Amino acid sequence: MIKVGIVGGTGYTGVELLRLLALHPQVELAVITSRSEEGVHVAQMYPNLRGHVDLKFTVPDLDQLASCDLVFFATPHGVAMDMAPKLIEKGTRVVDLGADYRIKDLELWSRWYNMEHTAAEAAAEAVYGLPEVYREQIRDARLVANPGCYPTATQLGFLPLLENDLIDADRLIADCKSGVSGAGRGANVGTLLCEASESFKAYGVYGHRHLPEIKQGLTDVYGKQVGLTFVPHLTPMIRGIHSTLYGVLKAPAGDLQALFEERYADEPFVDVMPAGSFPETRSVKGANTCRIAIYRPQDEDTVVVLSVIDNLVKGAAGQAVQNMNIMFGFEETAGLQIVGLMP
Amino acid sequence: MIKVGIVGGTGYTGVELLRLLALHPQVELAVITSRSEEGVHVAQMYPNLRGHVDLKFTVPDLDQLASCDLVFFATPHGVAMDMAPKLIEKGTRVVDLGADYRIKDLELWSRWYNMEHTAAEAAAEAVYGLPEVYREQIRDARLVANPGCYPTATQLGFLPLLENDLIDADRLIADCKSGVSGAGRGANVGTLLCEASESFKAYGVYGHRHLPEIKQGLTDVYGKQVGLTFVPHLTPMIRGIHSTLYGVLKAPAGDLQALFEERYADEPFVDVMPAGSFPETRSVKGANTCRIAIYRPQDEDTVVVLSVIDNLVKGAAGQAVQNMNIMFGFEETAGLQIVGLMP
Amino acid sequence: MIKVGIVGGTGYTGVELLRLLALHPQVELAVITSRSEEGVHVAQMYPNLRGHVDLKFTVPDLDQLASCDLVFFATPHGVAMDMAPKLIEKGTRVVDLGADYRIKDLELWSRWYNMEHTAAEAAAEAVYGLPEVYREQIRDARLVANPGCYPTATQLGFLPLLENDLIDADRLIADCKSGVSGAGRGANVGTLLCEASESFKAYGVYGHRHLPEIKQGLTDVYGKQVGLTFVPHLTPMIRGIHSTLYGVLKAPAGDLQALFEERYADEPFVDVMPAGSFPETRSVKGANTCRIAIYRPQDEDTVVVLSVIDNLVKGAAGQAVQNMNIMFGFEETAGLQIVGLMP
Amino acid sequence: MIKVGIVGGTGYTGVELLRLLALHPQVELAVITSRSEEGVHVAQMYPNLRGHVDLKFTVPDLDQLASCDLVFFATPHGVAMDMAPKLIEKGTRVVDLGADYRIKDLELWSRWYNMEHTAAEAAAEAVYGLPEVYREQIRDARLVANPGCYPTATQLGFLPLLENDLIDADRLIADCKSGVSGAGRGANVGTLLCEASESFKAYGVYGHRHLPEIKQGLTDVYGKQVGLTFVPHLTPMIRGIHSTLYGVLKAPAGDLQALFEERYADEPFVDVMPAGSFPETRSVKGANTCRIAIYRPQDEDTVVVLSVIDNLVKGAAGQAVQNMNIMFGFEETAGLQIVGLMP
Repeated sequence: MIKVGIVGGTGYTGVELLRLLALHPQVELAVITSRSEEGVHVAQMYPNLRGHVDLKFTVPDLDQLASCDLVFFATPHGVAMDMAPKLIEKGTRVVDLGADYRIKDLELWSRWYNMEHTAAEAAAEAVYGLPEVYREQIRDARLVANPGCYPTATQLGFLPLLENDLIDADRLIADCKSGVSGAGRGANVGTLLCEASESFKAYGVYGHRHLPEIKQGLTDVYGKQVGLTFVPHLTPMIRGIHSTLYGVLKAPAGDLQALFEERYADEPFVDVMPAGSFPETRSVKGANTCRIAIYRPQDEDTVVVLSVIDNLVKGAAGQAVQNMNIMFGFEETAGLQIVGLMP
Repeated sequence: MIKVGIVGGTGYTGVELLRLLALHPQVELAVITSRSEEGVHVAQMYPNLRGHVDLKFTVPDLDQLASCDLVFFATPHGVAMDMAPKLIEKGTRVVDLGADYRIKDLELWSRWYNMEHTAAEAAAEAVYGLPEVYREQIRDARLVANPGCYPTATQLGFLPLLENDLIDADRLIADCKSGVSGAGRGANVGTLLCEASESFKAYGVYGHRHLPEIKQGLTDVYGKQVGLTFVPHLTPMIRGIHSTLYGVLKAPAGDLQALFEERYADEPFVDVMPAGSFPETRSVKGANTCRIAIYRPQDEDTVVVLSVIDNLVKGAAGQAVQNMNIMFGFEETAGLQIVGLMP
Repeated sequence: MIKVGIVGGTGYTGVELLRLLALHPQVELAVITSRSEEGVHVAQMYPNLRGHVDLKFTVPDLDQLASCDLVFFATPHGVAMDMAPKLIEKGTRVVDLGADYRIKDLELWSRWYNMEHTAAEAAAEAVYGLPEVYREQIRDARLVANPGCYPTATQLGFLPLLENDLIDADRLIADCKSGVSGAGRGANVGTLLCEASESFKAYGVYGHRHLPEIKQGLTDVYGKQVGLTFVPHLTPMIRGIHSTLYGVLKAPAGDLQALFEERYADEPFVDVMPAGSFPETRSVKGANTCRIAIYRPQDEDTVVVLSVIDNLVKGAAGQAVQNMNIMFGFEETAGLQIVGLMP
Repeated sequence: MIKVGIVGGTGYTGVELLRLLALHPQVELAVITSRSEEGVHVAQMYPNLRGHVDLKFTVPDLDQLASCDLVFFATPHGVAMDMAPKLIEKGTRVVDLGADYRIKDLELWSRWYNMEHTAAEAAAEAVYGLPEVYREQIRDARLVANPGCYPTATQLGFLPLLENDLIDADRLIADCKSGVSGAGRGANVGTLLCEASESFKAYGVYGHRHLPEIKQGLTDVYGKQVGLTFVPHLTPMIRGIHSTLYGVLKAPAGDLQALFEERYADEPFVDVMPAGSFPETRSVKGANTCRIAIYRPQDEDTVVVLSVIDNLVKGAAGQAVQNMNIMFGFEETAGLQIVGLMP
């Protein structure tokens, strides 16, 4: 049993963390912070938690947080940069669901996030929390940078191809579709039901902050700089990401289906579907699973990978809990034995 | 640990039962039947179950089913009528999620279901599986008739008022709204996305099969025949029922809020919300909870009760598991500790 | 050909007015105002208008507006109260789609709108713009108070029953469901797609501003004060209102279907559907039509009326154009010959 | 004024044709056929047409159809193949919204449609009804093959690039997303609201019937065989197609924005949006418009084109009416002056 805190619990990743941690057998939820909602019962804001979470939001307090074994940051970028180094110094481990520690090149980070990075040491130490690649480093990490949602779905889809140097890494294409919860719980006109339902559109084509994160991850496993065109789209649904990935085979490929199945055979949360399957985002709704299918349309040399996750679970809170499980030596699936809600 | 079978597992209540039972600590899923899908892997039809349920659909076989401690029927009416009596004779207990045993007056049943009832004895023995009213009888029941979705939300909302004889029982109004999953997984034009989304309509105003069931239940707790106008509506969402209930107070009422809170104080799955709350169906999405709020608009003598459930959980599969827990002396909340999926 | 202005054109009723007026054969759109969007092309905010409307938002200017034959106010309450009297004095007629002139009892108005009413004379002169009741007065009106959305659907459903004194007017019930666009285009958390889709809830049970408006309208046609319980609900769709209305017959009723058909026989925008129909909100999506069906469930004495409109058309902009047509002697259906968008 | 007939009017393209033709100033709707719904009022099936269309479905009759100036076929493939040749022989012109005459290579057609083609002469004569490319031929055509929905959005997006030989035509990628109405009004489990809403998935990756149609069209304007990877996806909304198109520039490109604007300057139904725009499908909901935006992310050599249409309008019925207008010398925009329904 460990004591856990959450900084910034009012957004969608915050409430999703609460949903998962409330039922985790080895976690005691000790503190959840929010400056704006101080004193408000968590369950008043999120009635689904009535009877499950009996905490009030409090103002972040370093000492109180430091009494936890682990603190999750579910905050906009810039917050964890300030507080996480202080916590790890005091012996509290941190999983940051925000973007502060995802990019190793801090100049690049600053350019994309319009902000100076003030925690270079912590950033250098931070481990990128994609267990399928960095599990061993996560085990002993004091600070884990939980991956973004698009980066999770996209990297898991490209990995086996790049690790085996099968496709032209200069011209990768990731055509990604996200449910609206990826935009968070902020009151914006663009994500009103009347604006975002019954419609489909691309956004961020000139540049989305997940682009450098994905490129860094793919470059790391490939060993050389990759080239990537990344087009995110807004889909009229609450949860789910569908990455449709395109790459051109360098040479006659072998059995790609077998390659993917072997790569992920021991992964509890990556499910390579049978050949000919079409992964649906709803099949992972509420679950920490990434489902993948591989195609070579018309047997030509373009490979198409379909990769789906729930952006709030494997793309955020669920992966954070998975990282926690690894960090504390729990069963990796503890608290994450969830069947997707279908229909 | 008990052995459980499911007859008719291809519909939405079937897959929902599987979702719940797959993670139930005291249940071994032994058999699931479907004539049309014989030999098909359950997880092929419902990919959310991949990795959780490793069963194939089989043709119903009485001996195989009789080797179970409990069999759930998730079948259209008429099926359980035939098989359930044979099973209980062999010592296998039954929870019927269909309609065969819900109505005690078999002539009335025949009129609404256009079919002769051929299991009068079993029907007489069957216990109506609304634990909030019939918990003691459920404990020892061999055959439980699991309530319909509208009846569950509506009865739980009216109960405290009728038990205390506070409203005019001759003119009850239940204006009920259901998500589309209530109509099942059959391929009908009316429930296509293009027909049922972005629209709202009433249906069954001249008579819905849940009307006699609700009237029977309310009459039972009231002690006298009640009068009810019941108008169901189709709402463009997958899950959820919202019953808006109207009654006219007979006399100056006391504290209705307190009345409801006391009535349900010990109920693990009925949550009376604070005064002034508006229960949202999404707060119970995937959960076995009924959330209720009570109003007297403009302090006049009309009482308005708002009652929400997930039609597939507290309105079907969840309540069935709750009944199973009661029947076998398990913790009543076993396998049902679920936080609603929100957002 | 008349010159028309719109004050407050950035909200949903504003853009809907533009959609209708852009194609109206007798209207020249001269000016559209918005303080916040000054200088912005209308079609930049609403790309559906590209190629149809070539106007920029301007700051409201009395003289410019006074050069119009008619000005529509699509503004929050309080705005038209200030400007409309000045315009009608200058000879420009006004249709107010806001709430400033809907309630005749200004004290009552002030209580519900938390604001003093400063235009008593104009309010006294204003004609309530429900053509099915006040067509003759609208013809010569200088100032028309365009009805609210719930009030339109609800009054049209109750009218024939109250005009003929058929139901107990003390205990009317209006259980109303609205699409989310009724809440406007403001950036509120509650109307985000992730909050309002896949869910259903009541709101405003203790009192909604349309309650006094509906009561005033019904009282006017009935001749005596009516009693009404009005419960609005939020439905996960963009457009549409469905009013389910309940009343108790005072005496054995005659042919209600015929009564409704006769009452609305000459109305171009009220469609009494054949007996046994279930009006769907989608059948009026984008159209200025109110569709109605009448029921007596189980032939008892409770009458159920189903009434649907598009809240942005017959419930707002379309009805405003209909009023304009009447005021200027155009064909009443001019610019409103629209087939609902289905599917 | 011309007399028009529709064969197969019960599907979504059929009702959409009715919506458009009901208000077309130069069209008299004379006959609409359906074998299954013979005798049924069109407005009973589609209540949005009440008051607008007063026709009953009849069994197709060659003589009756031949009395029309134009007959639309809104039928599954195979039907127009049989009847259209007979009609054009009798002097009735035909627009086929089905697939029978879209592919010039009849062997290829047979392979994709699993059916022998029995009208080689008519197929040879048929003009592909994409006015932006074949307007002159359409003018005098007796038989027009109305393009498919994906092909319309995709070809209009690629055209300027291929006509000017700017991109590598061997590796085109079309990642396309369609609303569910593209799947038609048939009662299929896969398009139920409970299956297709709140989810996103690809389909037909191994081969969709629109692939050969798109390749033929692109090859025709390019002058050489093109290579195309086409991945269609199902999006949880009713109407709309969003094509995201990828191509690799062969050489430093000039001003692509200007190129597109010039190409479509005189096209009434293609709207090249300002640089930096993200076309939303809802901006063309119900309208015959294709909206396009062009990008070069990170100024690299991959071009991204975003192209949206309403699949039932510019992707089907609207384009058919546009073709009719051209064929009969009407104003090309007659009956198609529609503002998209937004919100």
